[in-house]
Amino acid sequence: MPATLGELATRFGLELRGDPEQVVTGVAALGEAGPRDVSFLANPKFRRHLPDTGAGVVILDQAAAESCPVAALVTSNPYAAYARIASWLCAPAAAPAPGIHPSAIVEKGARLETGVAIGPLAFVGSGAVLGPGVVVGPGSVLDGKIEIGAATRLSARVTLIAQVTIGARCLLHPGVVLGSDGFGLAPDKDGWVKVPQLGGVRVGDDVEIGANTTVDRGAIGDTIIEDGAKLDNQIQIGHNVRIGAHTAIAACVGVAGSTTIGKRCMIGGGAGFAGHLEIADDVVINGYAMVTRSLTKKGGRYASGLPVDEVHEWRHMVGRVKRLERLNQRVRRLEQAAGSEPPDDADDPRD
Amino acid sequence: MPATLGELATRFGLELRGDPEQVVTGVAALGEAGPRDVSFLANPKFRRHLPDTGAGVVILDQAAAESCPVAALVTSNPYAAYARIASWLCAPAAAPAPGIHPSAIVEKGARLETGVAIGPLAFVGSGAVLGPGVVVGPGSVLDGKIEIGAATRLSARVTLIAQVTIGARCLLHPGVVLGSDGFGLAPDKDGWVKVPQLGGVRVGDDVEIGANTTVDRGAIGDTIIEDGAKLDNQIQIGHNVRIGAHTAIAACVGVAGSTTIGKRCMIGGGAGFAGHLEIADDVVINGYAMVTRSLTKKGGRYASGLPVDEVHEWRHMVGRVKRLERLNQRVRRLEQAAGSEPPDDADDPRD
Amino acid sequence: MPATLGELATRFGLELRGDPEQVVTGVAALGEAGPRDVSFLANPKFRRHLPDTGAGVVILDQAAAESCPVAALVTSNPYAAYARIASWLCAPAAAPAPGIHPSAIVEKGARLETGVAIGPLAFVGSGAVLGPGVVVGPGSVLDGKIEIGAATRLSARVTLIAQVTIGARCLLHPGVVLGSDGFGLAPDKDGWVKVPQLGGVRVGDDVEIGANTTVDRGAIGDTIIEDGAKLDNQIQIGHNVRIGAHTAIAACVGVAGSTTIGKRCMIGGGAGFAGHLEIADDVVINGYAMVTRSLTKKGGRYASGLPVDEVHEWRHMVGRVKRLERLNQRVRRLEQAAGSEPPDDADDPRD
Repeated sequence: MPATLGELATRFGLELRGDPEQVVTGVAALGEAGPRDVSFLANPKFRRHLPDTGAGVVILDQAAAESCPVAALVTSNPYAAYARIASWLCAPAAAPAPGIHPSAIVEKGARLETGVAIGPLAFVGSGAVLGPGVVVGPGSVLDGKIEIGAATRLSARVTLIAQVTIGARCLLHPGVVLGSDGFGLAPDKDGWVKVPQLGGVRVGDDVEIGANTTVDRGAIGDTIIEDGAKLDNQIQIGHNVRIGAHTAIAACVGVAGSTTIGKRCMIGGGAGFAGHLEIADDVVINGYAMVTRSLTKKGGRYASGLPVDEVHEWRHMVGRVKRLERLNQRVRRLEQAAGSEPPDDADDPRD
Repeated sequence: MPATLGELATRFGLELRGDPEQVVTGVAALGEAGPRDVSFLANPKFRRHLPDTGAGVVILDQAAAESCPVAALVTSNPYAAYARIASWLCAPAAAPAPGIHPSAIVEKGARLETGVAIGPLAFVGSGAVLGPGVVVGPGSVLDGKIEIGAATRLSARVTLIAQVTIGARCLLHPGVVLGSDGFGLAPDKDGWVKVPQLGGVRVGDDVEIGANTTVDRGAIGDTIIEDGAKLDNQIQIGHNVRIGAHTAIAACVGVAGSTTIGKRCMIGGGAGFAGHLEIADDVVINGYAMVTRSLTKKGGRYASGLPVDEVHEWRHMVGRVKRLERLNQRVRRLEQAAGSEPPDDADDPRD
Repeated sequence: MPATLGELATRFGLELRGDPEQVVTGVAALGEAGPRDVSFLANPKFRRHLPDTGAGVVILDQAAAESCPVAALVTSNPYAAYARIASWLCAPAAAPAPGIHPSAIVEKGARLETGVAIGPLAFVGSGAVLGPGVVVGPGSVLDGKIEIGAATRLSARVTLIAQVTIGARCLLHPGVVLGSDGFGLAPDKDGWVKVPQLGGVRVGDDVEIGANTTVDRGAIGDTIIEDGAKLDNQIQIGHNVRIGAHTAIAACVGVAGSTTIGKRCMIGGGAGFAGHLEIADDVVINGYAMVTRSLTKKGGRYASGLPVDEVHEWRHMVGRVKRLERLNQRVRRLEQAAGSEPPDDADDPRD
């Protein structure tokens, strides 16, 4: 979709340095853009591409704008401005046309508001209530008591089961499963007794859930994903977990049952949370972190794990760590020989 | 479904302290239950909710029963008793009606015993043999030589492929894949040669498999999940693995090829197992543990990994660990200066 | 399929020690094979099974052949030879018959070359272009601009969405999702702004992708999996990642956005990569490694993490590691008392 720079500046509230009549049609990375492309500079790492960029216009901040060789759209948050402009210029031609594909199965009893689109080979069971403009992509399964708010979109092959409520304007990617049983087992003398999972999953507005992510229903009460939370791919959310509003979780994270994560947190990929923890608001957790205790300090930043070494160094390191107790004893012995006082915890019985 | 306390006590073999005519209709958590709810107290952590509970009756043990302000159902295993009562009181109205949904495809040659229910848009290939009362949920795919025992239930969108045998009374959740090829590759001068995967997957009775969990077929011979094993979501089981009876594995665990895990083990979420290991019976492994050697001690308990620190402390810790060799040398030098004997492994050549 | 040893020797270029007229019909492991089975010995660990093997013939190397009690097919790469012979002897009866299953939906506009097979309940959208002999398994969804090269096979319930190009002779297993949105979010004052994901996924020739693995489309530009790469199950590949030719990645690995992994690398299960890294060619990374920096040494070998200990030892170890700073100070004090010079980094301000 072609647009003039003047139009972009006005529509998105940006300062334009350049010709308002200049036309752009797409977006591209700074190092690869051509004269009809909008590009952006947010991460200083890419600044070196600015002097030679062939872009038609670059979205950037005040400081960077000084050295921009082409037209500039100036803002204090170039990445967000880029996101909005790119969505508007390039996003796919909009939702599929409303209606039920002839190959889809929509059971009697399902309630569909206006503008709902049900894709090929989707199944919508009798307990479904779909708000205006909901899109159910091909191969999806909605089986149980399923309520979906206006304009929410299930991309393809999404499964909602048992008892799931989703707000408005959410986006669920292929392979997502919401409402599967939590892992509830009571040990008994002959093995495990299944603890029935009776709760549901409640998802707020403006939530995005990535491919093959799973969210279990609550055991008693619901598993909750609050407004504006963003979940990447292959995440596992256990029963009765609560994810706070606007929290973003990168791929491959696992959150065990009944843990609460606060609002506006950022969780790195591959991190894992034990069950029954409380994580405060605005906490940042690095990728691959192992979270086994509650983190109650608002805005705290946490990490764990040892980054890679070359294999032979890693092997030494492991050996040294496993002999740390021995090293401590050697230091203790030297201290005794020197007649010096060891610290109180030199022989800490907790160790 | 309403029931009297007397009925519950008799049916589940519990001691009732209270009015046998009192009626309950559902279950709820101790802190949220009302007068028609059954609740339970198993984890001492929740004991603080007991004095003020509004529950109609609480399932608990002898000791806790003393201070129960409402009716009590007394047992030495309150959680298992709760699981059984909740299943009986609240579990969904039972399996779907038998029959083949008109949108399902059941190929000629498939053998269906009495009472089988095939859901909408499911595919059952010619090689399938489904025992009495089997439920194949919507969107499932059974393609290959697939045998399923009585009353086993595939919730929705389950995929069984190639060669899969499943016992009786199993429960498979959405997104499960059984029978996919194992990762078998032979290096050759021009890249990888695929090693054909020729075995199957054999699952015992009373097994539960969580959403998006995958179990590969054996390379030669079968991958085996024994009776009563319980697998949570997003677990990966490699080819020729064997999971022992009644072993429970939490979410996001990966088990590499040909590893055997014993009976009645408990494996925490996110743990990983290298291939070709032997894990003894009754072993307990903490979440996120990295298991790279066989663990042959029956009933052993294992863990690994460093829990999160605040980011700046974590950074120091990583630096200190990576300079452990240096610290060891400094201690060695002090020992030499002091003329003291270092331990035999101070300069361990394995390091 | 029966074959004579002479036929196998000729067809696969192996030296036969034994009767060229002897007939074999299948394959089996060395310890379990019978007289009609081909077996192999590649891993020296299994050598103990050789003297008593009941196999009809064993594929092995020169050295091992000396002590082979039965017929031998001799080669310097027994595992690759086994892979080829087993594929030829035992592989499933070949692809399904070409044609479109009556329950499949193939939209007008889709282009199917000769010999394409579309399975039951599959959906092929109007933007699909399928090369000769492509197999689309049951329940698969191809929705968007999807191009697939000759003889590529989607096993079952594979989802290709948005914009995906796949080369020839690839094999995709159930639950695979290619083309889902990457995790692109720009922080703004009221939460996250979605960064539109506009690129595609490009997969080369001879690539295999395991069950429930997900590959996100690029944000701008494509996510790329080069020729001959092999991905196991439950892997997550972020947007704009590039996986080099013939690289093999074991299960449960996560690769964050814009990271490049070189050619012929081998990545162990459960490893995780931060975003924007460069990994050189021929790098080997152990399972569960946490890769947070670029690894630029061609052929380097890397690892991280601490293998399991018994729980009480692990607890001590964690305590000792967390008090390493204290131990360092104690050594520093002893050095000062002894008047000895500490190393330059004893009080490294980086710590």
